[in-house]
Amino acid sequence: MKSLLPILLFLLSGCLYSQEPVKASVERIETRIQEISQFGAIATGGVNRVAYSDADIKARLYIVALMENAGLKVTIDPAGNIIGRRRGRSDELPYISAGSHIDSVPEGGNYDGVAGVVAAIECIELLNENNLVTEHPLEVIVFTDEEGGLIGSMAMNGTITEKDLGRISNSGKMISRGIMDIGGNIEELDRARRNPGEIAAFLELHIEQGAILDNEGAEIGVVEGIVGIETWEVTIEGRANHAGTTPMNIRQDALIAASKLVIAVNETVNSFDGSQVGTVGKIKAEPGASNVVPGRVILTIELRDLSREKIMMIFDRITVCMEMIEKETGTDISYHHDHSNIPALMNGYIREYMIASSAELGLSCRSMPSGAGHDAQNMAKIAPAGMIFVPSRNGISHSPLEYSSPEQVAKGASVLFHTLMKIDRELPETTSLPGQHLYPVQPGEKVL
Amino acid sequence: MKSLLPILLFLLSGCLYSQEPVKASVERIETRIQEISQFGAIATGGVNRVAYSDADIKARLYIVALMENAGLKVTIDPAGNIIGRRRGRSDELPYISAGSHIDSVPEGGNYDGVAGVVAAIECIELLNENNLVTEHPLEVIVFTDEEGGLIGSMAMNGTITEKDLGRISNSGKMISRGIMDIGGNIEELDRARRNPGEIAAFLELHIEQGAILDNEGAEIGVVEGIVGIETWEVTIEGRANHAGTTPMNIRQDALIAASKLVIAVNETVNSFDGSQVGTVGKIKAEPGASNVVPGRVILTIELRDLSREKIMMIFDRITVCMEMIEKETGTDISYHHDHSNIPALMNGYIREYMIASSAELGLSCRSMPSGAGHDAQNMAKIAPAGMIFVPSRNGISHSPLEYSSPEQVAKGASVLFHTLMKIDRELPETTSLPGQHLYPVQPGEKVL
Repeated sequence: MKSLLPILLFLLSGCLYSQEPVKASVERIETRIQEISQFGAIATGGVNRVAYSDADIKARLYIVALMENAGLKVTIDPAGNIIGRRRGRSDELPYISAGSHIDSVPEGGNYDGVAGVVAAIECIELLNENNLVTEHPLEVIVFTDEEGGLIGSMAMNGTITEKDLGRISNSGKMISRGIMDIGGNIEELDRARRNPGEIAAFLELHIEQGAILDNEGAEIGVVEGIVGIETWEVTIEGRANHAGTTPMNIRQDALIAASKLVIAVNETVNSFDGSQVGTVGKIKAEPGASNVVPGRVILTIELRDLSREKIMMIFDRITVCMEMIEKETGTDISYHHDHSNIPALMNGYIREYMIASSAELGLSCRSMPSGAGHDAQNMAKIAPAGMIFVPSRNGISHSPLEYSSPEQVAKGASVLFHTLMKIDRELPETTSLPGQHLYPVQPGEKVL
Repeated sequence: MKSLLPILLFLLSGCLYSQEPVKASVERIETRIQEISQFGAIATGGVNRVAYSDADIKARLYIVALMENAGLKVTIDPAGNIIGRRRGRSDELPYISAGSHIDSVPEGGNYDGVAGVVAAIECIELLNENNLVTEHPLEVIVFTDEEGGLIGSMAMNGTITEKDLGRISNSGKMISRGIMDIGGNIEELDRARRNPGEIAAFLELHIEQGAILDNEGAEIGVVEGIVGIETWEVTIEGRANHAGTTPMNIRQDALIAASKLVIAVNETVNSFDGSQVGTVGKIKAEPGASNVVPGRVILTIELRDLSREKIMMIFDRITVCMEMIEKETGTDISYHHDHSNIPALMNGYIREYMIASSAELGLSCRSMPSGAGHDAQNMAKIAPAGMIFVPSRNGISHSPLEYSSPEQVAKGASVLFHTLMKIDRELPETTSLPGQHLYPVQPGEKVL
């Protein structure tokens, strides 16, 4: 009889699994989010837990303890990324990885990043509770300094530069110094790099940081891709002049030209169908006194879309507007391309698994682009990647007001778990071939 | 024979005067402007001679020496104003005063203020050279800290406040401290105040600081009045949002509303006949990052005209535009009135004397408003006042590029001299009655 007990238990657990899908623990998720929110807590209810700060360092120790308690073998890679590993049946296979970050923006909220880390660890807890062992080995990754420019995931995909390391982070420390302080090793940073083929799939759960799910009442967002971002700095040269002594008809007012341009950017972006967005977020008028006609205005134009071609086509239209505004206002408008983030498309199989998992769990889901940047966009360069969004109340993020309920995060964690299990069982081996996921894929198309 | 010589010389000088009007010395004016430009000279050709700085203090000593060499009795009043006095035939009569300032804006030019001081001293030199004694006693005034807010002339008309004295000046010194450093005495500041009736007339020559004379080739500007200035600070409240995750159609972009307002201000000002001007010179978008939809914009609206009623009427029209923009953009627009300078009209008799003097000297002249503020606007509150403009090349001022030729300044100084002589002989005593010059006078009308 003694030897039959494990078999009986196994059959019983299989039985339960087929009747009622495994679901994340709302209580455990709530407790953990609350506990992490103590590190760097500020009076307004959010956190100041910028990367490399004392609060960040303490929160990382808490996470390491959580991982170890869940039976993971924890290492810190040379970039300071925390990696907790669980063996699979076949350790020859590449890792299935899931993770996010725990650093915050200055005066940030309690969910951005944290939700994804807690959800990834929750998957391990569910495997433990259900006595499950995956085929592939698993990894939970907590990336270094996401908010300061995706530092940890850039180190993993090998795109980090000396310039990145030399920047001063929000902690006040140079990034290279900060990495040393969290247990990384700048001298061996190359060894943080993961080669294509090492990771079978990367998964990240994140709060939406927009209001689409919240407005529609959808429970799960399946991310089609992370939009590309192109930024230009535009300089408008007019002529600074005394605001009292310069008649209206001879002014070359750079701010009037700039105002026309701000409106033109908005109207041009809105003139196309689709989910592209365009923003003038930064403007500076010089000399900037109430009694001087502005002689120079510097502003930024940022355009985002899943298609880089579309972004460039919209910007071309904007340059036509610039020429008209120059003539109208007697100003000179010049620009330089400031910054480029190539769109990162999510893997088609993984998106299907997420949709199927949501359906099995009875959760409403929708596909959507991610307008914000995430570590998943860097991981997509070395592995098939997928992202799950959970609703953000009112779309607020990077603010103490940021909120996703424990139930909402738990639903996302359940989808993460089942997606991970499907990948483990079903993801075609070919999808882990280096580079294949780099080919342009349109939303809705599958990668073969 | 010996006793006839002075009589002969007197007749001869009278003879010369009737044939050829007295004219300012181009050479003396050129030399003095050049010498003053050494104090605080900067590499770009201008000066950094902000009030209370070492350069200002040294330049003041140079001016005192010039005045003393011209036979003036020099005093420093409690506000630090330099006053050089010359006796008249009847010291019972009120003073005829002329002056301007020698302090500059940071990185300013060599003519703003200096031209008027040199021209006023030139009048004394011409009197000396021609052995002339006026009926009225005369004053040359060099005002304290004009560029920092007409400090010296506010002390003279009694409108200076504790708040003014507590401001930090461009020298880095608190104004009260700066006044002590240039020989003033804050404890006795009330004694700098001049009572209505003490000054028969105040005259100021100044560079135009606009391009009207330069563009038209006119040699003399007779100032109708110094425009009133009304300034509002406008706050546009939208909603700051992530520039990637916030769809275009749900944004409340404060910068788009602000851009519409900037254009509306310009169009509204231009929709009226007249010489009114309106400027948005200062704008700040918050949070001010390229990747955040601006949630708040603060900007200034400044309107100037010789008629305060017209300014207010234009602003009323602008508020109608604000309401339309609020509805269009989903923002809230509020404003508060920030600053008010009542228009200061110049005395009608004095303007006629300036026009007549220009004609006698064969100089082309035109009447015009002063769009810029000057010490004369404060002096107009306690005495009949007049201003002469000389051309500024390209209308540039507050810049090392500021330029008026010695010939142009000398022509203005000659008009200043003859205007002063006419006032001395002809200005009706009633114009020095306290308060009469405060009544609203329309350009072209005479004060009785």
